[in-house]
Amino acid sequence: MTDKKLKVGIVGGTGYTGVELLRLLSIHPNVTLTAITSRGEAGLPVADMFPSLRGYVDLAFSDPAKSNLSDCDVVFFATPHGVAMSQAQTLLDANVKIIDLAADFRLQDKAVFEKWYKMAHSCPEVLSKAVYGLPELYRKQIKSAQVIGNPGCYPTTVLLGLAPLLEQGLIDFSAPIVADSKSGVSGAGRKAEVATLFAESSDNMKAYGVSGHRHHPEIHAQLTQLAGNNQADADVQFIFVPHLIPMIRGMLSTIYVKLSEKAKTIDLQALFEQRYQHERFVDVLPAGTLPETRSVRGSNQIRIALHKQAETGYLTLVVVQDNLVKGAAGQAVQNMNIMFSLAENTGLEVVPLLP
Amino acid sequence: MTDKKLKVGIVGGTGYTGVELLRLLSIHPNVTLTAITSRGEAGLPVADMFPSLRGYVDLAFSDPAKSNLSDCDVVFFATPHGVAMSQAQTLLDANVKIIDLAADFRLQDKAVFEKWYKMAHSCPEVLSKAVYGLPELYRKQIKSAQVIGNPGCYPTTVLLGLAPLLEQGLIDFSAPIVADSKSGVSGAGRKAEVATLFAESSDNMKAYGVSGHRHHPEIHAQLTQLAGNNQADADVQFIFVPHLIPMIRGMLSTIYVKLSEKAKTIDLQALFEQRYQHERFVDVLPAGTLPETRSVRGSNQIRIALHKQAETGYLTLVVVQDNLVKGAAGQAVQNMNIMFSLAENTGLEVVPLLP
Amino acid sequence: MTDKKLKVGIVGGTGYTGVELLRLLSIHPNVTLTAITSRGEAGLPVADMFPSLRGYVDLAFSDPAKSNLSDCDVVFFATPHGVAMSQAQTLLDANVKIIDLAADFRLQDKAVFEKWYKMAHSCPEVLSKAVYGLPELYRKQIKSAQVIGNPGCYPTTVLLGLAPLLEQGLIDFSAPIVADSKSGVSGAGRKAEVATLFAESSDNMKAYGVSGHRHHPEIHAQLTQLAGNNQADADVQFIFVPHLIPMIRGMLSTIYVKLSEKAKTIDLQALFEQRYQHERFVDVLPAGTLPETRSVRGSNQIRIALHKQAETGYLTLVVVQDNLVKGAAGQAVQNMNIMFSLAENTGLEVVPLLP
Amino acid sequence: MTDKKLKVGIVGGTGYTGVELLRLLSIHPNVTLTAITSRGEAGLPVADMFPSLRGYVDLAFSDPAKSNLSDCDVVFFATPHGVAMSQAQTLLDANVKIIDLAADFRLQDKAVFEKWYKMAHSCPEVLSKAVYGLPELYRKQIKSAQVIGNPGCYPTTVLLGLAPLLEQGLIDFSAPIVADSKSGVSGAGRKAEVATLFAESSDNMKAYGVSGHRHHPEIHAQLTQLAGNNQADADVQFIFVPHLIPMIRGMLSTIYVKLSEKAKTIDLQALFEQRYQHERFVDVLPAGTLPETRSVRGSNQIRIALHKQAETGYLTLVVVQDNLVKGAAGQAVQNMNIMFSLAENTGLEVVPLLP
Repeated sequence: MTDKKLKVGIVGGTGYTGVELLRLLSIHPNVTLTAITSRGEAGLPVADMFPSLRGYVDLAFSDPAKSNLSDCDVVFFATPHGVAMSQAQTLLDANVKIIDLAADFRLQDKAVFEKWYKMAHSCPEVLSKAVYGLPELYRKQIKSAQVIGNPGCYPTTVLLGLAPLLEQGLIDFSAPIVADSKSGVSGAGRKAEVATLFAESSDNMKAYGVSGHRHHPEIHAQLTQLAGNNQADADVQFIFVPHLIPMIRGMLSTIYVKLSEKAKTIDLQALFEQRYQHERFVDVLPAGTLPETRSVRGSNQIRIALHKQAETGYLTLVVVQDNLVKGAAGQAVQNMNIMFSLAENTGLEVVPLLP
Repeated sequence: MTDKKLKVGIVGGTGYTGVELLRLLSIHPNVTLTAITSRGEAGLPVADMFPSLRGYVDLAFSDPAKSNLSDCDVVFFATPHGVAMSQAQTLLDANVKIIDLAADFRLQDKAVFEKWYKMAHSCPEVLSKAVYGLPELYRKQIKSAQVIGNPGCYPTTVLLGLAPLLEQGLIDFSAPIVADSKSGVSGAGRKAEVATLFAESSDNMKAYGVSGHRHHPEIHAQLTQLAGNNQADADVQFIFVPHLIPMIRGMLSTIYVKLSEKAKTIDLQALFEQRYQHERFVDVLPAGTLPETRSVRGSNQIRIALHKQAETGYLTLVVVQDNLVKGAAGQAVQNMNIMFSLAENTGLEVVPLLP
Repeated sequence: MTDKKLKVGIVGGTGYTGVELLRLLSIHPNVTLTAITSRGEAGLPVADMFPSLRGYVDLAFSDPAKSNLSDCDVVFFATPHGVAMSQAQTLLDANVKIIDLAADFRLQDKAVFEKWYKMAHSCPEVLSKAVYGLPELYRKQIKSAQVIGNPGCYPTTVLLGLAPLLEQGLIDFSAPIVADSKSGVSGAGRKAEVATLFAESSDNMKAYGVSGHRHHPEIHAQLTQLAGNNQADADVQFIFVPHLIPMIRGMLSTIYVKLSEKAKTIDLQALFEQRYQHERFVDVLPAGTLPETRSVRGSNQIRIALHKQAETGYLTLVVVQDNLVKGAAGQAVQNMNIMFSLAENTGLEVVPLLP
Repeated sequence: MTDKKLKVGIVGGTGYTGVELLRLLSIHPNVTLTAITSRGEAGLPVADMFPSLRGYVDLAFSDPAKSNLSDCDVVFFATPHGVAMSQAQTLLDANVKIIDLAADFRLQDKAVFEKWYKMAHSCPEVLSKAVYGLPELYRKQIKSAQVIGNPGCYPTTVLLGLAPLLEQGLIDFSAPIVADSKSGVSGAGRKAEVATLFAESSDNMKAYGVSGHRHHPEIHAQLTQLAGNNQADADVQFIFVPHLIPMIRGMLSTIYVKLSEKAKTIDLQALFEQRYQHERFVDVLPAGTLPETRSVRGSNQIRIALHKQAETGYLTLVVVQDNLVKGAAGQAVQNMNIMFSLAENTGLEVVPLLP
C-alpha cells in the first residue's frame, strides 16, 4: 500500500452507479475527487442533487468539454453505453487509466458488441487491450491494464458462482446451464420511466428480457472461455432469465447446472471454500445455509451457497450481491485498487446495512 | 345457476386465507356466512380483527366446539395442516361438504403425506375419496366430490403451466423440469415470526427450501400422473426452488422444460390458447409478452406466457397468480361453485387492483 | 334505481385515476363504456396497456378528435388540469354531463384558480354552475348538477374529518387548524419522473409543498364556507403539510384542531357517529381505535377516528381513504350514481383488499 | 484523540439496536468488542444470526451470567426497559461506564418513569447521577458521566429541532407544540409480532399511541427544562402523534410551533445555522429545501429544515434521522466517544446509503 492520493474523475455522476462511486470514493483514503462531469447538470453542486453527500463531496458537476479529466490518474465512466469508447483514446494518450462501468469494453468480440448494443464500436484497438474487470478471475491482467471493462451486474453473480466448477471441468454440458436471476429496481438506472415508478414496480414482480438480454452474450463469452481451458470443445449452452424485484438494491441468481460424473464424487463445498479462501469479497456460506440479499446491502461482498440435488444430478447455486457495489461501483473501485497497487479492500470495508 | 343460498362455515378465519375467503364470500350472491370459528378469538367480532370487513361481515368468531358447522352445506378449512382430517368424518356424516385449504387431502399417497408433513394421516378412507381441487384439470371429479384438497399455491402455477405440454406428451424427460418460483410474503401466513417481519423481509429476498419443500411431492405426484396418461414410463424429474419476494401478494413461477422433438415442430402458443380458451380464469398471454404479478392482484386469474429458447430446445414458461386467490381462497370458491352447480365465476369477477 | 345503461366516456384513460375508473366502471351494472380517449395511445387496446383489464375492457383508446364523446350520457375527465374546461361547453351543449377529476371546477373563485394553477380559466360561466362533488356535504346540489368538480384527494379527508365540527360551530378559530397529511405515491400520477421512481421513493419519505400546495386553497375555501354557516365572521386559519409515503395507495390525514369551550362538553364521538350514520362510505371508528390505510384499500370507504387531547383542549382526527377511490375515481362514480338517480353504492361495493 | 482500544460489551445483541451497535463498533478504530450477551442465544456465533457481520464479528453470544462485562471499559445496554437498572450498580462498582439505549435513565423523575413504564425504578440513586445523552445539548455533562440514558428516537428529532428556539425564548406557549412524527418499522424492534409482519405493515400506514406514547413525557420533560432557562414560568403544552411508515429505517418529525412576536422579526434560518455550525451531525438545510429520510440512511446525521408559515405566525420544522443511528446506536457511540475523549465522529463517518 502507498500513501499517494490518486486524482480521480467520474464521467456521468448523476446515475446510480455514479452516486455509488461517490459514496465509496469520497471517503477512500487514497483518492482525491478531481472532476465529476455531467452535461446536463454543469455547475450544480453534487450535494444539491444528492443531499446524502452533504459534508462529503464539495465538488460541483462540471461540463465534460471543460473538465480537467486529462489531469486525472484514473477516470470512471458511469455513463450510457457508447460514451467511454468515444473518449478512451484521448485519455489514454494523456496517460489516464480508464474504468468503464458500461458495456463498451466488456465484450472482446466487436461483432457481438455491435449486434447487441446496436452501435458501431469506435475504438476496436482499445477494446483489444481492455481487460474484463473481474478481479477474482483476472487479477493479474487487471494489475497491468490501462482500460477496464467493468463486468455487468448479472455476469458477476453467474461467473463467480460457476468459476470453481468450470476451472475444474465439473459441468456436464449436455444440458444447458440455467441462470434465473433477480434484481432490485436500481439496476434499471436513474432514468425517468413509467415502468420503474414506485406505483408500477412496488408490490409487483416480473420476468423480462426472456427473448434476449444484453448480459447473455457477456456471460456466454466468459463461460465459454473458462470452460475452454480444460474442455476445449465444450459447447456451452446457457439460458438466462432476469426478473425485476421490488427492492432498491440486491441481486440474487439461482443457477441450475448439470454435474459431470466426476463432480458427483467430489466435495463441492470444500472445493468452493478452497477456491475462494483468500478472496476478501467472496464468501462461501456454510453447507446447508442460504444467503439473503440484505446480508450484502451496501457492501462489496458476494455470497455463494451450493446445494446438490442428488436425485437429478444437478447442482443449485444461490449467489447474492449488491448490484450497485460488487455488481458495479464497488467492483470498479476494487479494480482501481488493483491497478494502482493499493490493498484490494481499501475503502471497501463497509459493513452491510442490516436491517 | 340457482338462487339458493348456501350455508357456509369457515374453520380458522384468522389467517390470510381465512380473511381472503371472507372477502370473497361476504359478497358472494349465493352464500350466507354461517360460522367462522377460531379457538383463540371466540367472541371477537370478525370485523374488529379485520376492519376492512366492517359493513360486510357481522359475525363474531365462534368456539369450534360450540359452532354449528354441521348445519352448513359446505365448510372451508383455513387451518394448519392436520385440522381438517380430524373433523372431516363428522362433517361428512352430517352431509356437509369439505374444502380444505391445507394439505390434508392433497397427496393421495398417505406415506408421502406422512413423510413430508410429519404426522399420521387420521382418515385415509376419506383421503381416498378426496379430489385434488384444480378445476381446469379435474372439473368433472370436483363436481361430484364430497371432499376437496385445495391445491397448494406453487403447484397451481406449475401444473397449469405444464398441463398442455403433459397432456400432449411434448416434454423430453431426459432432463429435469426446473421450476424457479417466487412468492410474496403473505404466503408465509399470518404468524408472528421474526423472519417475515417488515424490517426483515422488506428490501430483501432469498431462496428457501432448496433441500426440500412440501410442495415438491405434491407437484411431482401430479406431474407424474399427468405424464403417465400418454408416456406411461415417464420418469419425471423435477427441481423446485421457491423464493421469498418483498411483496404482499403475488406469485411468479419461471419454468424451464426440455421440449420433445415433436414439440419443436408445433405451434405451442396456439396449443396453449386452444387448451385454455374456455377457461375463465386461465389467460394465455399474446406471444412475445410477459406477465406481471400485479396484473392479477386480488383476482382469481392466472396468466401464462411461453417463450421458446430455440438455441437450447427448451421452453420457458412464466406463470403468475395471486397466491391468496387462485393460489388459495379464490380457487376454493371456484371449487365450491362447481360442487354446487353454480356458474364457476360466481362471486369471482373481481377486477385486479392496479396499481 | 333503474335498469338503464349509461353511455360513459373517459377522457384521458392512461393515468392512475383513468385506470381506476375503468376498474370500477367495467363491472358497474348500469354502465356501458363507450369511449376512452388518449391522444398519445389512439388505437392501442386498453387492455394492452393495462393487462389487469384483460377480459373486462375490450375498447381501444380513441383519438379525442374522432371520439364519440357527444353521444355519451356522462364524460369523466381524468386529465391534467385545464383539459376539461376546454371541452366542457361543447359537451354541455350536447347534453352530456361532466365529472372532472382535475381541478378545473373545484375552486369557485376564478382568481384563486388562476393564481394556483397558473392558467386562465376558459369557461367561468360553466364554473359558476359547477358543483363541488363531495356527496356527504353537497348531495342535493350534485343530484341536479351538469358539471362536477370532483374534490382533490387531500381535501376529501380533511373536509369529511372536520365537517361535523364545522357544522356545529365547535372549533376555536383563534388557533390554526393543522392538517398533516400523508399520501401514497400513486397520488403523484403515472408520469415518468425521477422523484417517484421505485429506487427514489421506496424505503424513504419526505414532506413536500410546505410553502404552498394546490389543495390548500381548495380546503381553505371549503372550510370557510362550512364555518360561515354558523360563525359568519370566522377567520379560518389552516396549515397544511403533505408528505409522500412509500406505499402505492392510501392516504392518512392527522388533523389537529382547537376545540371551542362548547365542544369540550359534548360527546364528540356520538356527534360524529350520528352525523354519518346514514352515509354508506363514511365509517366512524369505535372510540379508542385508529384506522390503517389498508383497511380501505381498493374501496370507496373513508374511516375517521377522533381522540380528545384533554390536556390541551385539542381534538386529533385521523382520517384514512384510498386516494384513488374515495379520493378520486370512486367518489367520481359515487357522484355519477347520484346524478343519474342510481343507488349511491352501485358498483362501489368492493371489499377492501387486505392483506 | 488517543490510540487506546476500549474494551466494549453489549448486553442484548439480538435486536436492531444491538446489531446496529455491532455494525458501527466492529470497525470503530478504538474499540475491541469484548462481550455480547444474550440469554437466549448463548453460544451462537453472532455472525450466524446476522450474516451481514461475517468477517467483521467473530464473537459468539455469551450467557449474561458468565460474561466478563466487568472487565469492560463501557457496556451498552440494547435491552428491554428495566434490564440496565438491574445491573448498573454492579458495573459502576467495577468502574465500568454504562450507556443504556432503553429508557431506564432517560427520565429524571422517578415517578414519571414508573407511571409510563409500569415498573419500579430499582436504582434511583444511579438515576440521579445519569446524564441524558443528547450531545448537542449536554456535551459537557456527558464528558464526565458514568451513566448515560441514551435518548429515545422521537425525542432526538423533536428536541434538536426545537432547541434553537427554546434556547432563545422564541416560542409562544399559548398554543401547544404539535409534533407529528413518522417512523420506519424497525423502530418497533426485532420481535415476533403480527402487527409488524411484512404483509401487515407494507403498503400501509397508521397512527398509533395517540392517547399516550412513552416518548411524550420524555420530550415534555426536556422541553420544559430547555424552556425554563429563559421563560421560567413557561407552561409547555405538547401534542405528540407517532405514525408507522412502511420503510425499514428512517424517521421524520414535522413540528408545528407558534412563534413569539420576537421570533417573527428574526432570521430563524440564520439562527439555526449558527447554532449548529460546529455540530458534525446536525445539518441545517438551505432555506426552501426539505429533507428526505434516505438522505441519512445508515448515518448519524440529522437534517433540519424550517419554513415560516407567515399567514399564521407558525413555524414548521421538518427533521429527519435514521432512527437506528442518530436515534439509537449512532448517538450511543457518539456518547461513548465523548466520554472517552475520542474525536466525536470516530467510527461514525459513514456516508448515507442512497439509493
